[in-house]
Amino acid sequence: MIPITSQIDLLQLASGDNLSIQVYKFIGKQPGKKVYIQSNLHGSEIVGNAVIHQLIEFLRELDEDRITGEIWLVPVCNPLGTNQRSHFFSSGRFNSYDGRDWNRIFWDYEKDCEDLATFVKTQKNLGIKEVRKNFLEKQKAAFAKQLERIQKPSSVPYRDRYRYQLQSLCLDADFVIDIHSSSNQGIDYLYCFHGREESAKYFLLEYGILMTEYDGNAFDEAFMKPWLALEKQLTKLGKAIKFDLEAWTLELGSGMQMNPESVEVGVRGIKNYLAYKGILTLAEYSVNYPASTEIQLVRRDRIKNYYAIAGGMIQKRVPLKTSVKAGDRLYQLLSFNKSGDLPTAIDICAETDGLVFDISTNQSVNQGEYVLGILNFEL
Amino acid sequence: MIPITSQIDLLQLASGDNLSIQVYKFIGKQPGKKVYIQSNLHGSEIVGNAVIHQLIEFLRELDEDRITGEIWLVPVCNPLGTNQRSHFFSSGRFNSYDGRDWNRIFWDYEKDCEDLATFVKTQKNLGIKEVRKNFLEKQKAAFAKQLERIQKPSSVPYRDRYRYQLQSLCLDADFVIDIHSSSNQGIDYLYCFHGREESAKYFLLEYGILMTEYDGNAFDEAFMKPWLALEKQLTKLGKAIKFDLEAWTLELGSGMQMNPESVEVGVRGIKNYLAYKGILTLAEYSVNYPASTEIQLVRRDRIKNYYAIAGGMIQKRVPLKTSVKAGDRLYQLLSFNKSGDLPTAIDICAETDGLVFDISTNQSVNQGEYVLGILNFEL
Amino acid sequence: MIPITSQIDLLQLASGDNLSIQVYKFIGKQPGKKVYIQSNLHGSEIVGNAVIHQLIEFLRELDEDRITGEIWLVPVCNPLGTNQRSHFFSSGRFNSYDGRDWNRIFWDYEKDCEDLATFVKTQKNLGIKEVRKNFLEKQKAAFAKQLERIQKPSSVPYRDRYRYQLQSLCLDADFVIDIHSSSNQGIDYLYCFHGREESAKYFLLEYGILMTEYDGNAFDEAFMKPWLALEKQLTKLGKAIKFDLEAWTLELGSGMQMNPESVEVGVRGIKNYLAYKGILTLAEYSVNYPASTEIQLVRRDRIKNYYAIAGGMIQKRVPLKTSVKAGDRLYQLLSFNKSGDLPTAIDICAETDGLVFDISTNQSVNQGEYVLGILNFEL
Amino acid sequence: MIPITSQIDLLQLASGDNLSIQVYKFIGKQPGKKVYIQSNLHGSEIVGNAVIHQLIEFLRELDEDRITGEIWLVPVCNPLGTNQRSHFFSSGRFNSYDGRDWNRIFWDYEKDCEDLATFVKTQKNLGIKEVRKNFLEKQKAAFAKQLERIQKPSSVPYRDRYRYQLQSLCLDADFVIDIHSSSNQGIDYLYCFHGREESAKYFLLEYGILMTEYDGNAFDEAFMKPWLALEKQLTKLGKAIKFDLEAWTLELGSGMQMNPESVEVGVRGIKNYLAYKGILTLAEYSVNYPASTEIQLVRRDRIKNYYAIAGGMIQKRVPLKTSVKAGDRLYQLLSFNKSGDLPTAIDICAETDGLVFDISTNQSVNQGEYVLGILNFEL
Repeated sequence: MIPITSQIDLLQLASGDNLSIQVYKFIGKQPGKKVYIQSNLHGSEIVGNAVIHQLIEFLRELDEDRITGEIWLVPVCNPLGTNQRSHFFSSGRFNSYDGRDWNRIFWDYEKDCEDLATFVKTQKNLGIKEVRKNFLEKQKAAFAKQLERIQKPSSVPYRDRYRYQLQSLCLDADFVIDIHSSSNQGIDYLYCFHGREESAKYFLLEYGILMTEYDGNAFDEAFMKPWLALEKQLTKLGKAIKFDLEAWTLELGSGMQMNPESVEVGVRGIKNYLAYKGILTLAEYSVNYPASTEIQLVRRDRIKNYYAIAGGMIQKRVPLKTSVKAGDRLYQLLSFNKSGDLPTAIDICAETDGLVFDISTNQSVNQGEYVLGILNFEL
Repeated sequence: MIPITSQIDLLQLASGDNLSIQVYKFIGKQPGKKVYIQSNLHGSEIVGNAVIHQLIEFLRELDEDRITGEIWLVPVCNPLGTNQRSHFFSSGRFNSYDGRDWNRIFWDYEKDCEDLATFVKTQKNLGIKEVRKNFLEKQKAAFAKQLERIQKPSSVPYRDRYRYQLQSLCLDADFVIDIHSSSNQGIDYLYCFHGREESAKYFLLEYGILMTEYDGNAFDEAFMKPWLALEKQLTKLGKAIKFDLEAWTLELGSGMQMNPESVEVGVRGIKNYLAYKGILTLAEYSVNYPASTEIQLVRRDRIKNYYAIAGGMIQKRVPLKTSVKAGDRLYQLLSFNKSGDLPTAIDICAETDGLVFDISTNQSVNQGEYVLGILNFEL
Repeated sequence: MIPITSQIDLLQLASGDNLSIQVYKFIGKQPGKKVYIQSNLHGSEIVGNAVIHQLIEFLRELDEDRITGEIWLVPVCNPLGTNQRSHFFSSGRFNSYDGRDWNRIFWDYEKDCEDLATFVKTQKNLGIKEVRKNFLEKQKAAFAKQLERIQKPSSVPYRDRYRYQLQSLCLDADFVIDIHSSSNQGIDYLYCFHGREESAKYFLLEYGILMTEYDGNAFDEAFMKPWLALEKQLTKLGKAIKFDLEAWTLELGSGMQMNPESVEVGVRGIKNYLAYKGILTLAEYSVNYPASTEIQLVRRDRIKNYYAIAGGMIQKRVPLKTSVKAGDRLYQLLSFNKSGDLPTAIDICAETDGLVFDISTNQSVNQGEYVLGILNFEL
Repeated sequence: MIPITSQIDLLQLASGDNLSIQVYKFIGKQPGKKVYIQSNLHGSEIVGNAVIHQLIEFLRELDEDRITGEIWLVPVCNPLGTNQRSHFFSSGRFNSYDGRDWNRIFWDYEKDCEDLATFVKTQKNLGIKEVRKNFLEKQKAAFAKQLERIQKPSSVPYRDRYRYQLQSLCLDADFVIDIHSSSNQGIDYLYCFHGREESAKYFLLEYGILMTEYDGNAFDEAFMKPWLALEKQLTKLGKAIKFDLEAWTLELGSGMQMNPESVEVGVRGIKNYLAYKGILTLAEYSVNYPASTEIQLVRRDRIKNYYAIAGGMIQKRVPLKTSVKAGDRLYQLLSFNKSGDLPTAIDICAETDGLVFDISTNQSVNQGEYVLGILNFEL
């Protein structure tokens, strides 16, 4: 089937040129749930572009009665980030203008919605669909106020303009998938919200991080947090509802790369998840969709990052995906000086057991630069 | 009198070179309050270096019996920020490594101190000096835990190492002055904490911004917030104490400049404030210290920033310090296009009355870039 | 009259967005010479955009019989440079990818044309128009080879693609005007090629720099050098021809600004020059076109730049346009240290007499950073 | 044996901190030739730091009678480059201030020495040692003039100050080794000057590039070119002398990495070369020093770089060190658009046969960004 495409203007540059995003919409024959998938929110995290490309190629070959609901795809969803260069590296993790992380800028209705408790009381006796509809309307009304500010003479910083455009596309989605990767070198894993562990298995990944605390204003959080807050309030009133709404951040490998294995992992996981959710009907495909695998979830606060204790160069670092025991050497820091001494090679050992899930691309470090990250499953 | 100097290592660079800060301490004959003054926390905000240089020159000529207590001075307090260049501009507002604003990284004990209410109860019957001493000890103990983390093999990011060193110097200070400027082009003003309006007058400035909300983890906030929280808790217990502890951020003119007028305003204000606080005895000086002037304070939430509604070039902007009325033209945006049309010149008018207190250095703007800021005193 | 506009694609970004330039062509009723005017080749040098905007506004009001020949205008001619930001400064002097100065990348046929001497012999007995036509054909043929390389699978770096597009527009022009400014703070002046001093007067500027040596591959040089080389060869053969071909770089004030005085100086000078060249007929206008003024020309090798002898902060610098005598203080360097000493203020004095024509925007300098430039007219 | 260390101040930063380099000198019992080895001239090319560290460890264990002559080692020889960061990448290939490539700034006496022909005539009847001595004196005298300029009030840009310090260390060396790597991902190879092919074999590398043209002002060129020019002039006079002076740039693998294989290749090659030159006596070591291997040399003008023909993402690229035939697919460009079309995957095929010796680290490319380089041995 042929997708419907549309373009959304994001930014008029000083030169008068425009940056925009393009949405590919595959609308199934039967109405149903809406999936929203984007990639490349951080400039160097390009792997999801290949994933979305392969999904487009796959969906094009599909008959439209194979899709129930709709699938919206937005590759290269942050042109300003994607195109940012320093020397020849993709440095677009932060807005070069204001230093803001592109994935910490989104509008989180939970923070705005001061009358949630009052609202919830009015929904006590309604069905789940109606509650969802009512809360979505409420959220949309609050969201629309941003446009008023954008159109004033004082307008808003670009980050607010950008988030408005991007969140407009997915506010009413049922399932949101934001494809990232390490900005350095990483394994494949996902971020999972509390209460959505069951679905996590369908992405066919080995590892996941369970969000116990929030960074604040990340894309997935901005989508999920209002609904989680609503669920909590309803539960307090004795109405334990779980909306079939989910947001996922997939982390697929390394930055500035589209590693074929990570791409395949991503494509397979998303197809399977969509089959699990009933959006894709893939019965006859060789892989037995929907499959599910055990996923090892580790709480976010059990991630241990290692930073250089001195300036120098990293050598003899254990490879990505190594299981280490407390006391094992993680790496050696080759440190130079300007005080007449010989260079020193300092061994850095693991404080705890765990899995090396992320390592720095750059082996040259100032004191305090990031070297590697460990997932500690045991604690 | 001759200051005592000491150096504190901040950062070993990858190359093995070190960055450090140097503290100049003028210790008076009589013991008393401690003042801590620093400059150039943001890389482009250099004006305070000249202010501190002039203070050093002034204090050197002073007899030591003119000083009661001690004055600690730290110019160029953020070498990594000061030395950062992009092309030939000082781009050191953000850590180039992680995008963090150098003035949003500091350790705020208020956020850590979970047992404040319990502690306060134990202080109910003590005198103000003792309460101060006890809370300072408590704060120092918590602060010291950072050093343990720094010394672990996993250590901490540079920003945490840096804040530890800088805050070590002023945790026990009575008065903290952090000299900034606009990163763009700005007027001279200060930031004032709630409850310290009376002292604000002694800086001899025309304008001030009253902090109604907090950016979070700024240097002045990190110093004051625990004490303000303590005062609040004590008040709740019927013990309305105001500690003679104050933190000030002075904003002196424009970035990448040491405008002589702004330098003079800063030096004059600080001398007068120190005279007012009894740290300097300057009776015979021609200016009648301590003098005080009316300062116009505006609440922080009454600042209105204007961002470009389209990409283009700014022309015909009203000058800094212009008083505008709602509807007055603030600037014209010369906007180009790639769609075959003629360039357009769009007038942007003020939404409210106010004083233009800050304008962008760069007149080339992408859509959403900052153009100017207005203080609205009336609202 | 209404200009004809056309767009030329420059660059497809990684995100799939495109950057392009737009040309405004005012074609006179009578055929004649072709003028090509561009602005903003360096990202921070935006002043020429306002100049071109005012020229467009002026030409729109003109009857087409007032123009003989054609005027091509290209504002914001380097979108990649214009849109480049670091923090909020326009850092687009260099290609962030390869460090190349955007005005040192152009194709200079003189370097390519190995058979110039042979060619010239064949033109010995032809008229000036014919020689011009023949050499232009020859140049175009060589130029076209670039397109072949661009279209190969190995293609070319962006800088070569870009120069091809830009030079395509002006290869056959008679007069080329490239509007720059200081990237720092500068006076208004122009660059003049040897042998074109007479025309320089018609830009109504006080100062000019006579090119005695070439930076290599600048836009104006790339246009003029082949013709100057041809003139030289013809002269050698006893045929002293001067083609009515000229290229000018106007330097109008400061970077990141569109200073109204500099804009006016630019507009006035260009109108007058075009009147002088017979392209504009402006007899009845209040200013007596074409007027001419004395211009003080200084050889490029008589520019003396001052670089910081130590790291520190610049204070007490003489203002732009100051006439200094050898031995006069130019500025004071406030230099800090980490060795326990007091800060020092070092006076830097002029080595020679001259006019301060350019000063750094940033008053914070590492050792060896640029502080100011002096034109020495006397030597 | 214990090396002698010395520090050389390079740069006082705006903050008052200093950057310096440290030289490790191993002085043999017997006088002899001088070898100068440096690493990390480009900020991201750190591999040589590990090579030099291992050489220091090796030489420390050696008796001093094993060394004839002296070995000077300068790791992290460009602190400003090494410490430069953008996001967390080492972006120090260019001076962030002026865009200059750190390896195109060096003083090349050949360009300065206008009276070479005259000088050579005076040396006609002298022995090779005397000619070397005389020309070195002449070179030193010219070199010293830089110091005069540095010490003037107008001083010089940092790049000129820096080159003065670095070249001071090696002007009188016999053998210069500058250890680089690809800034991207590369194989191990060296750059070889015309006439030094014989010695190239002793670095035990498979591949080398023969310099047929000069980039200008590279470190190795600045050392060798005056001597090559002298040799040429002497030859013209019928005195065919070859000085035993050599400069080598080793390229060891990839940027931001110290790949253990590349480090080992470098250490082994340098030890063997020093044994070959008689500086190290390593008879009893297990490897039979000096060994030599065939090295495949390709002329520099036979390198073919591929640049992206459109903006997009690179996939299916052949791995580093692949031998390709003309017509083979080199990579696929996944290109997005904003015009409503589906993404396209464009195959890019080799124009010629060759070896893929270098590939971009970043798989996200604007149109015209570098993708890979091929050595064409056949042509």
